[in-house]
Amino acid sequence: MEQPKFIRFTIKGEQRARYGLIDAQGVTDLSDRLADRWPTLDAVIADNALSLAAAQAAECADRIPVNAIRFETPLASPGKIICVGVNYPNRDAEYQDAQPPAAYPSLFVRFPDSLTGHQQPLLRPRESEQLDYEGEIALIIGKPGRRIAQAAALSHIAALTLANEGTVRDWVRHSKFNVTQGKNFYRSGALGPWLVPYRDASQLADIRLTTTVNGELRQDDRTRNMTFSFAWIIAYLSTFIPLHAGDLILTGTPTGAGARLTPPQWLKAGDVVEVSADGLGTLRNSVVDEE
Amino acid sequence: MEQPKFIRFTIKGEQRARYGLIDAQGVTDLSDRLADRWPTLDAVIADNALSLAAAQAAECADRIPVNAIRFETPLASPGKIICVGVNYPNRDAEYQDAQPPAAYPSLFVRFPDSLTGHQQPLLRPRESEQLDYEGEIALIIGKPGRRIAQAAALSHIAALTLANEGTVRDWVRHSKFNVTQGKNFYRSGALGPWLVPYRDASQLADIRLTTTVNGELRQDDRTRNMTFSFAWIIAYLSTFIPLHAGDLILTGTPTGAGARLTPPQWLKAGDVVEVSADGLGTLRNSVVDEE
Repeated sequence: MEQPKFIRFTIKGEQRARYGLIDAQGVTDLSDRLADRWPTLDAVIADNALSLAAAQAAECADRIPVNAIRFETPLASPGKIICVGVNYPNRDAEYQDAQPPAAYPSLFVRFPDSLTGHQQPLLRPRESEQLDYEGEIALIIGKPGRRIAQAAALSHIAALTLANEGTVRDWVRHSKFNVTQGKNFYRSGALGPWLVPYRDASQLADIRLTTTVNGELRQDDRTRNMTFSFAWIIAYLSTFIPLHAGDLILTGTPTGAGARLTPPQWLKAGDVVEVSADGLGTLRNSVVDEE
Repeated sequence: MEQPKFIRFTIKGEQRARYGLIDAQGVTDLSDRLADRWPTLDAVIADNALSLAAAQAAECADRIPVNAIRFETPLASPGKIICVGVNYPNRDAEYQDAQPPAAYPSLFVRFPDSLTGHQQPLLRPRESEQLDYEGEIALIIGKPGRRIAQAAALSHIAALTLANEGTVRDWVRHSKFNVTQGKNFYRSGALGPWLVPYRDASQLADIRLTTTVNGELRQDDRTRNMTFSFAWIIAYLSTFIPLHAGDLILTGTPTGAGARLTPPQWLKAGDVVEVSADGLGTLRNSVVDEE
């Protein structure tokens, strides 16, 4: 059976955000059918009920054509958005520092406004010419917990999606420590295209993750190479702060961001960035200059 | 006329969170009186309507005794919580680095769960003996904006309060960059005691801010000495991300945190930390070991 793919969307010409399932035939709107129980996709996640919601939609044959909708970010109001820094060993080598691998990951935070949905424009801000891409796998927490054991960690995941953790490089370096400002320009990154429910550990064990710019392959790695595994990250984060349903974890990018190329290659208006992964689809965004 | 002081609170023995005003006579509950318009203090802030809410409560004489209530963090669901790092010049000197003053502040993020209310216990986690205090002035945004001009910036503030930006020092240094983990241990910091509506620039110009531990003065500075002013910070943050009503800005701590003492002095169970500022009251928390 094909994996269900959940989206949050608006119908073009409408304001109201809806949610539903997308497949080769189009979009099944669940907003009205399941409104009593789950008015939003956020509410489905809060109940950790993606499988239940998918089952209730199974017999529905009505479809909205994909070209009649606009993709929104998967959750309207995510909880925490915690981002993992350097997390693929090849990438460390590019930094050309002689230090041993870090014992712990660098962690930073994005705000929801810094991310847009699939097929929406990435905004290159007026303040910088150094907009860069970072393709990543994102986890959506479904089951809350604190001090979660690694062995149980994956069971706290509700769903997976992709992120383009778009970064304004010169603003990342505004301070000696902490990258907050360069990671939080309005709609400089993206999340989507859809949520794939978490099934079992095999689903995450060896995903190929790629990023292309105008069709040119820039990032290409596999999750088996990650320095800090998905389970380790969940356990570590929950050591200091409780995880809640609706929290997002952006799990770090492979080598090959534009900043690391010689010379650096920044995104410019008209560029198309695609982040793809086995089983998770392709998150596609074009770049526009912010007005 | 005395400044109104808004609190979010529960009556001991009850679960329901209420909001109201506190003065020398006790607590005026506004939750039921203003429920149709503003069911929560968050809703008052979302409407940037503290003055209006205070005016509607003016003729109410009923009071709840202060010892019958428990103080909660001022907002149930704050938006962004953005924290400014080093922001008083004397503090830089303590780092004993020869570098010129930074052109931009270090920024990091706290999650709401990392903060507790006035008179609630600060939790020293099992994982560290290095819990430290940082007294700060916190701004609550009332009027949204992007790329706000410095000249207009203060008018976006709804209210002021105090923060103890409690920090687990060894976890701050888990990674070379970014302090996320050491700044986000569950209930390692506090916010309160109450919200004081923003009135005009004179209110912020030269506030004395102090922190004591068991009555011993540890931090003592004035807002006129800040490296980055309140207006500058608001303008800077809004350059990259829109500010919304309900966002919090923790504006940086004076010199004198326990980590800077020789030898360092960490908080331990039973210690009482008080952050005080002219016109904003005293945020008081005792330390307990997390179970």
